[in-house]
Amino acid sequence: MIDIRPARRTEGVREYYFSLKNKEMARLNEERASRGEDRIINLGIGSPNGMPPAAAIGKLVSTAPLPGQHAYQSYTGSPELRGAFASWYARYYGVTLDPAVEIQPLVGSKEGILLASLAFLNAGDKVLIPDPGYPTYSSASRLVEAEIVTYDLKEENGWMPDFDALESADPDSVKMMWINYPNMPTGAKPTEELYRKTVEFALRHNILVINDNPYSFILNDKPLSILSFEGARECCLELNSLSKAHNMAGWRVGMIAGDSSLIAQVLKVKSQMDSGMFRPLQMAAVEALSAGPEWFAELNAEYRRRRDVVHAIYDALDLRYNPDSAGLFVWGGIPADHPLIKDYAAGKSLGERLSDRLLYDTGVFMAPGAVFGRNGSNYIRCSLCADVPTLEQALMKIKAL
Amino acid sequence: MIDIRPARRTEGVREYYFSLKNKEMARLNEERASRGEDRIINLGIGSPNGMPPAAAIGKLVSTAPLPGQHAYQSYTGSPELRGAFASWYARYYGVTLDPAVEIQPLVGSKEGILLASLAFLNAGDKVLIPDPGYPTYSSASRLVEAEIVTYDLKEENGWMPDFDALESADPDSVKMMWINYPNMPTGAKPTEELYRKTVEFALRHNILVINDNPYSFILNDKPLSILSFEGARECCLELNSLSKAHNMAGWRVGMIAGDSSLIAQVLKVKSQMDSGMFRPLQMAAVEALSAGPEWFAELNAEYRRRRDVVHAIYDALDLRYNPDSAGLFVWGGIPADHPLIKDYAAGKSLGERLSDRLLYDTGVFMAPGAVFGRNGSNYIRCSLCADVPTLEQALMKIKAL
Repeated sequence: MIDIRPARRTEGVREYYFSLKNKEMARLNEERASRGEDRIINLGIGSPNGMPPAAAIGKLVSTAPLPGQHAYQSYTGSPELRGAFASWYARYYGVTLDPAVEIQPLVGSKEGILLASLAFLNAGDKVLIPDPGYPTYSSASRLVEAEIVTYDLKEENGWMPDFDALESADPDSVKMMWINYPNMPTGAKPTEELYRKTVEFALRHNILVINDNPYSFILNDKPLSILSFEGARECCLELNSLSKAHNMAGWRVGMIAGDSSLIAQVLKVKSQMDSGMFRPLQMAAVEALSAGPEWFAELNAEYRRRRDVVHAIYDALDLRYNPDSAGLFVWGGIPADHPLIKDYAAGKSLGERLSDRLLYDTGVFMAPGAVFGRNGSNYIRCSLCADVPTLEQALMKIKAL
Repeated sequence: MIDIRPARRTEGVREYYFSLKNKEMARLNEERASRGEDRIINLGIGSPNGMPPAAAIGKLVSTAPLPGQHAYQSYTGSPELRGAFASWYARYYGVTLDPAVEIQPLVGSKEGILLASLAFLNAGDKVLIPDPGYPTYSSASRLVEAEIVTYDLKEENGWMPDFDALESADPDSVKMMWINYPNMPTGAKPTEELYRKTVEFALRHNILVINDNPYSFILNDKPLSILSFEGARECCLELNSLSKAHNMAGWRVGMIAGDSSLIAQVLKVKSQMDSGMFRPLQMAAVEALSAGPEWFAELNAEYRRRRDVVHAIYDALDLRYNPDSAGLFVWGGIPADHPLIKDYAAGKSLGERLSDRLLYDTGVFMAPGAVFGRNGSNYIRCSLCADVPTLEQALMKIKAL
């Protein structure tokens, strides 16, 4: 084998925590099967298990067999899809976007995290990243060799950025800032004050803010877009997605929206990387985006039933939680003297200790908060992406511990 | 608007030539319509207009409505899809690949060009890129701020690399090399000697070679993979795709194959950027990959009929061409004293002059060779992605000039 070193930009990037954990759980499941035990209940990740809107599937199925659907599509997405995203933003967020130049469809919003990082961050540029937060913000920053500056989200601040702390940390040297509300992993909902302060902060210090907004339709009665706030068009981009709102995580349909000059830069990078989306998927996404309030009401009724069971699990475990959090997860605070982990796996964070204890002794997996940053160390995250009977089974197992 | 400079890596990256030209043609088509003229015949790009294998569409249509198909999929692709790629390589290329670790499915092979560049090239690393060649090799290199070193492909060498020239150009300082056979834009087929020499060159100078191989089933009776050559596993990766071989360009299904340690690096970058492919698309691709020789026989019978007409066009235009070239294009050499462009658009390359003359005076568009590099300046490229009646119409228009 010749000696080919990977590029330096990949060095800080680790295998995703859940990728490693999934391998461990596959091993454990084999052992459990050999002992006649049931499989691990995986409440670790947020991959919606419900069906997409029937109209979306119907459109895919009716379009795919037609001629004229199979050639390369434009990088910019079809006018129909961009139009549907614009209508969706107007209807639910009260934001008017020019579909021709202010919206770029993406292969899921995750693609947008790397694209925006490639488009705007030079090696060494400072980028503000929330702790706790979605690990991809920092992985993408490492891939472009940007300098990561984490900012604290704390329970005592309702998981909102502390702008006084941000002001005193040389904000003029920062180029870009990631925010994500409704927040993952904490479930904190955005407030108007949050977005107003964020825009003021960005304008004052010439910072490009990107709001990652895929959770705004889940357990959240009032979807908010940062782009609806005064001044936001001058300094903000927003990512959004059908993954959670329409149970279409596997379909890989997302978007980024904002000022046309910024969108053009994202497109410039994207056009070097892939081609347009499969046309039948675009047409199906158009159908999904036309879903009315009744779709979201039904979706959230189900998530509310699930959340009730997770609250019961957290009550059984004596964890702190916000009973009205948004998104696909419930975030649980672990008391330092929690009896279940008193003498268990000392040296690790409280979240890792409780996660491991539950995994090994009850066969229920929840994500330890440390995966999302230092400030998540004393927390655990339970997914709502399992149906009520499964969650009730988890509750029984945990009560039996 | 705040002052947000794009990252330096985007500076050298221009809007794709065809993106600009498409806008011009849209304008021209409006003018033509207002004069009651027919639309421009676009023979510029290589986007297959045929139908994918029926079994692939059938699988997509039957799988998409089922539960369990809509959640996030693994970055590594399903075992079924990796297995199907492995079977395809064994059946048609005689190459044995371990589906578990030597194959990574991609969102089209184009994604692989940027992924491999991100995975292996540091800023300033030297990368060998063919001139003429697919523009994305250089765009991706610019995005990772690598140093591009072009190598010449010339008609007198049958569009093969000149290894003597490569040996004398400090090859030990090079980290990566792109090759692409059957070659785009020239249509040159790979020879066994080419691949043997390339592998020897790579091993001697510690260079990672990536062969971009999407055209090997088009007008080419003997598909070859560089991975079938001795030593290639030590120094080569190969990109492949269903876009051309299965008329599935819009579906975005490709792959990269090679040594597991190299594939792991590509996966590391990819896992930061997107999630796995929509499961029904993966299952459909499995069906497409099982297509037998009769599929390719039929596909190529059609391309042969089209190529005959393009040869007639080139004869009418008095261009040089290889009557047995592979791939989706025919490459035409333009004599310096070509009468059609004698006093036309002086200062531009021969290819641009002839392309513009044909576009403006006959309503037929072919790509000027300069798009693919300096060595393409005196050539024009005609696509086979139009049906025979359309090509015959183009022939008539050109004969009438």
